[in-house]
Amino acid sequence: MPGNSFGKAFTITTFGESHGLAIGGVIDGCPPGLPLSEADLQGDLDRRKPGTSRYTTARREDDEVQILSGVFEGKTTGTSIGLLIKNKDQRSKDYGNIADRFRPGHADYTYQQKYGLRDYRGGGRSSARETAIRVAAGGVAKKYLKTMLGIEIRGYLSQLGPVVIEQVDHGVTNTNPFFCPDASKLEALDEYMRALKKSGDSIGAKVSVTASNVPVGLGEPVFDRLDADIAHAMMGINAVKGVEIGDGFDVVTQRGSEHRDELTPDGFASNHAGGVLGGISSGQDINVHMALKPTSSISVPGNTINVDGEATDIVTKGRHDPCVGIRAVPIAEAMLALVLMDHVIRHRGQNAGVGSSTPDIARQS
Amino acid sequence: MPGNSFGKAFTITTFGESHGLAIGGVIDGCPPGLPLSEADLQGDLDRRKPGTSRYTTARREDDEVQILSGVFEGKTTGTSIGLLIKNKDQRSKDYGNIADRFRPGHADYTYQQKYGLRDYRGGGRSSARETAIRVAAGGVAKKYLKTMLGIEIRGYLSQLGPVVIEQVDHGVTNTNPFFCPDASKLEALDEYMRALKKSGDSIGAKVSVTASNVPVGLGEPVFDRLDADIAHAMMGINAVKGVEIGDGFDVVTQRGSEHRDELTPDGFASNHAGGVLGGISSGQDINVHMALKPTSSISVPGNTINVDGEATDIVTKGRHDPCVGIRAVPIAEAMLALVLMDHVIRHRGQNAGVGSSTPDIARQS
Amino acid sequence: MPGNSFGKAFTITTFGESHGLAIGGVIDGCPPGLPLSEADLQGDLDRRKPGTSRYTTARREDDEVQILSGVFEGKTTGTSIGLLIKNKDQRSKDYGNIADRFRPGHADYTYQQKYGLRDYRGGGRSSARETAIRVAAGGVAKKYLKTMLGIEIRGYLSQLGPVVIEQVDHGVTNTNPFFCPDASKLEALDEYMRALKKSGDSIGAKVSVTASNVPVGLGEPVFDRLDADIAHAMMGINAVKGVEIGDGFDVVTQRGSEHRDELTPDGFASNHAGGVLGGISSGQDINVHMALKPTSSISVPGNTINVDGEATDIVTKGRHDPCVGIRAVPIAEAMLALVLMDHVIRHRGQNAGVGSSTPDIARQS
Amino acid sequence: MPGNSFGKAFTITTFGESHGLAIGGVIDGCPPGLPLSEADLQGDLDRRKPGTSRYTTARREDDEVQILSGVFEGKTTGTSIGLLIKNKDQRSKDYGNIADRFRPGHADYTYQQKYGLRDYRGGGRSSARETAIRVAAGGVAKKYLKTMLGIEIRGYLSQLGPVVIEQVDHGVTNTNPFFCPDASKLEALDEYMRALKKSGDSIGAKVSVTASNVPVGLGEPVFDRLDADIAHAMMGINAVKGVEIGDGFDVVTQRGSEHRDELTPDGFASNHAGGVLGGISSGQDINVHMALKPTSSISVPGNTINVDGEATDIVTKGRHDPCVGIRAVPIAEAMLALVLMDHVIRHRGQNAGVGSSTPDIARQS
Repeated sequence: MPGNSFGKAFTITTFGESHGLAIGGVIDGCPPGLPLSEADLQGDLDRRKPGTSRYTTARREDDEVQILSGVFEGKTTGTSIGLLIKNKDQRSKDYGNIADRFRPGHADYTYQQKYGLRDYRGGGRSSARETAIRVAAGGVAKKYLKTMLGIEIRGYLSQLGPVVIEQVDHGVTNTNPFFCPDASKLEALDEYMRALKKSGDSIGAKVSVTASNVPVGLGEPVFDRLDADIAHAMMGINAVKGVEIGDGFDVVTQRGSEHRDELTPDGFASNHAGGVLGGISSGQDINVHMALKPTSSISVPGNTINVDGEATDIVTKGRHDPCVGIRAVPIAEAMLALVLMDHVIRHRGQNAGVGSSTPDIARQS
Repeated sequence: MPGNSFGKAFTITTFGESHGLAIGGVIDGCPPGLPLSEADLQGDLDRRKPGTSRYTTARREDDEVQILSGVFEGKTTGTSIGLLIKNKDQRSKDYGNIADRFRPGHADYTYQQKYGLRDYRGGGRSSARETAIRVAAGGVAKKYLKTMLGIEIRGYLSQLGPVVIEQVDHGVTNTNPFFCPDASKLEALDEYMRALKKSGDSIGAKVSVTASNVPVGLGEPVFDRLDADIAHAMMGINAVKGVEIGDGFDVVTQRGSEHRDELTPDGFASNHAGGVLGGISSGQDINVHMALKPTSSISVPGNTINVDGEATDIVTKGRHDPCVGIRAVPIAEAMLALVLMDHVIRHRGQNAGVGSSTPDIARQS
Repeated sequence: MPGNSFGKAFTITTFGESHGLAIGGVIDGCPPGLPLSEADLQGDLDRRKPGTSRYTTARREDDEVQILSGVFEGKTTGTSIGLLIKNKDQRSKDYGNIADRFRPGHADYTYQQKYGLRDYRGGGRSSARETAIRVAAGGVAKKYLKTMLGIEIRGYLSQLGPVVIEQVDHGVTNTNPFFCPDASKLEALDEYMRALKKSGDSIGAKVSVTASNVPVGLGEPVFDRLDADIAHAMMGINAVKGVEIGDGFDVVTQRGSEHRDELTPDGFASNHAGGVLGGISSGQDINVHMALKPTSSISVPGNTINVDGEATDIVTKGRHDPCVGIRAVPIAEAMLALVLMDHVIRHRGQNAGVGSSTPDIARQS
Repeated sequence: MPGNSFGKAFTITTFGESHGLAIGGVIDGCPPGLPLSEADLQGDLDRRKPGTSRYTTARREDDEVQILSGVFEGKTTGTSIGLLIKNKDQRSKDYGNIADRFRPGHADYTYQQKYGLRDYRGGGRSSARETAIRVAAGGVAKKYLKTMLGIEIRGYLSQLGPVVIEQVDHGVTNTNPFFCPDASKLEALDEYMRALKKSGDSIGAKVSVTASNVPVGLGEPVFDRLDADIAHAMMGINAVKGVEIGDGFDVVTQRGSEHRDELTPDGFASNHAGGVLGGISSGQDINVHMALKPTSSISVPGNTINVDGEATDIVTKGRHDPCVGIRAVPIAEAMLALVLMDHVIRHRGQNAGVGSSTPDIARQS
């Protein structure tokens, strides 16, 4: 009933606040025998962490992850895996001015109302800091999916404010601080962000993530459809306000004869569906897009109320991303990996073994 | 691990195929003492059922729901509620031609691959027929939410192909077969649908649903955020390819100073967030939008393969909706009711009772 | 969070009261391709149902089960399976006298206090009538376990009041109305029950159940250990007050050198553990014993209170078992089948596929 | 699906091996506002930890627990609580001789078979070391239950081998290293244990735990009955082979007229049921008993096989408890606290609010 776990068969349970002693989590359900070390997870943590470029927050988070259990002599043992990242650069005095008032557009007000009290330091549990553990856990899933099934998960920025990315070259994505897969847009992004930073304002973004080599058959209808679980995962990332699979909202004006992906002996003729049919993976690339709102932690003054309900105003100081969407790229990858991993295990448990028509996944693994 | 249950505290578990003996389900977790009878559920079932207008499928589904348990002397007892709807008009011979080939854009291919066999009659479990039980269960949730908390849930068509709805008058929605809340668009819709039907093709749609009077505090971060669970619910409706909360994909080009909803002593000054902040309801209206793809059951011939992987073609005969999006309106309402109901119970269990700052919901109920 | 579901991977969710329209349930998670029909389930239902001998209640329950979904052309499809048993012989007037007072030793008082109201007809949801659906669902699990893994599940009466069963011959168990595996005790049982019935009183019993050919490796430590899940299942059967695995309470006085089951190249040298080590099946027979209390529905008058808390007395009329323990035999078998089935799926999902040391179960199926 | 979580509404998820870097866990679902610090948990950890007397293992575990999150300014915040205990005295060389052979009566064989590999150091995940985190988490539950509802949970040794405890004085229990509540038995216990230790053998034990002031109404039939969940919790403790509620196996020979607890205007006249009727707490004391097997880690040589299946023998050296049952007392208390806490939240969520007959618990809290 509580909400800090994700996944039914490959489950992560997380804890930790922005300015507490540490953040951490438990992975339960990782199959035994997978070669695993901290080094497998650190790469994505470094991609996510702030302070890596002048466009993201200057706060230094030393996201060094420790694997506390579940691995013996370099391999997973099938028991639960404890993950820990200590909080280092906390500087909590920066946040004193938000202890008694609610930042508009933040979780301050709703946490206070829901729980009757809140850890206001840096947003407490509602801080994006918490997503570091998702990235670490997603790294374990990525490793398994890649090693066992050849699944490749790649995210990228597809729009930042008015700058629309037009070409996707996965080789370009990780060569720039925007996770932009289109080299021809880098200058426009740089220019836009410079001006934005000067204005003290922030901007929204669109992020996309693709999974290739996904076997057909993942997804448990009618409620835990693969697309439904992906939507749950993505809408659960801080700041996400919209999720699309395949053609997404474009389908509103499409005709059936145009939208349907015809089948041929060589495979599907198109991929409007984004790799999911009837809630089950089709074997095509899974394509997901999401919209991320502009952060409300800006230096443009705004109206709000204090904890006593009186009118006041607020200027968020401290170090904040002008575009939180950028850093969502590795988070979105991690969440997609977690969903796929969960469904690989669920499918395998439920479907292997009866009759001759054993599905793909069981055969592959 | 299997996927036919929805909700953690107010749980529905469903069964049934398009052409089996019956569809049904179990509601587990309904609080005791709620006045309830079949009549409370039948209204929405009638709104959902096909054959009510010339724009939806002519198939007559006599969606008469029976409550088999959990109600005694007109009130819920707190025990599980069995729901049953018998299948009547089955005419399974219509579907014989799809036994050996896969309809493009359907779940035929993925079900076959996942399970190694499938009930091809009318789509089997993947048929939208299954959603009738969601609507019945949602009716129980709606009744509770309305009775106990005054929550009102209203869905409507917001776009159908090129026809964009511009005004929302909830009084208009249920007076026309399109669930269109804008009287000025009825003629355009009628015209468009006539032409479409003649062409044998289908069209996508956008559907919206709003919940009013929602108390602040619903949602269980960091994973079972209210918005994440809504996205899961909506993306799990057949044909949905995109979900938005509040401003949705419009946030990509918004600035922080524009997007953030300022707080005043009289409440929020705007509602770009769509009623959810940090994954928790803010007390504002919850606004959700979703995109529904055009059905692939059309009479325009298409290419496909048969179960042996050989190229063939297909024309879907039988009675099908040219726009499945229309009938999704009561389904979307039901799913939103189920999510809210689940979170009312979850919040109440987890948060009542400690200290003086008891949250809203516990106070109200 | 609500409690009418059992199992995480092979899940049953049940509904229904003693005197409602029907009882029923949903099996979610049954693998596809299993040959299945009502006939597979009816045998155990007939063994459980009352009225089959003069020692059990004379109430005629025509426990005819219907499979409403999830089976197509004689095989399971992998989708959820709806089960329904209509209530026929309800005679609710018999129970009028317990509407306003609580039977001592029954759930009457606790249901009233928990829910604030109760369906008093025949015990409502707390009636053993509900277990018929467990038996039906257990029948599906039994079929799978037998067909796919050769697992055999056999229950029997091991003690009834002072009559202790001394020999277990599974061939004898189902030839007598006591499920007694020891032919030499049938006369003593018959005599004891005759006298008991005359006295209007009831008696407790001990029931045992064994599973043979269970593969090594089932169980998910540290909380969902196989033995823990078995204890959950058995203690959840009406009237059960104690559960033992293997030597059970005898271990209190055993020494380590006596209790430990030594391993030899030909297998274990003994089975004090009852087939479970460290919460995981060892490949030996799983042996479970349980104690069932004497029913409180007796014609010996007793003191109680009414719904207003005033002192009164009660005599339970109607048709009741003098020893409810007897009928628990097929229920215990069903529950053990459900636990094993659940763990077969869980183990298979979680453990197949990595490295060369693929566990037994994956190899077998 | 994986098994390292316990509880549905107040959930703990644990990780950690005997000789890894640390053991730890996450509590999810603790209500906000509860005063909490490490000091609240340390007392029970000290009671559980070995090395406190000459009768338990001499291994020094410095079980110092850290609360890493979920508490702010001395109160719980409603977010997840991270717990960590570092492993200090690991001495893993002691265990080298069991790397290639299976200790009879241990989880060595089943872990190896299930997962294909195992962390053999000190039993890895199957070590009782893991229960320290259960005790810490149980401490949080105990604190809430005591503070909010006045519930008192007290365990004690009720039998050790042939020494049967005859009087229960809770004031005596914690004054001796046996958790023995009967001062007149201390000498007999001391004598027995001395002789046992000299023999190099081990002995079983019976442990009991009682909860007082439990409100009526806890338990979610028909599967998550309070007694069923207690049985699950207790049978899930290492070495437990039997669980009883109330009169337990004595009911086998009881008559209905003797067993039923009559109700009077002043309460129940007896407590054969052990505080649970129909799976729901009755408001009487909850009485639970369990049987713990003698540990197999003894210096008496035994036959076994090695990982290649060849016959060999084994003598377990190192520091081991001659009676593991003794230390189970605080663990059993913790598990009962976790079950009750879970059901308090579940009951409150599911039952508050409708109609005038609001149940007890909602009124109290």
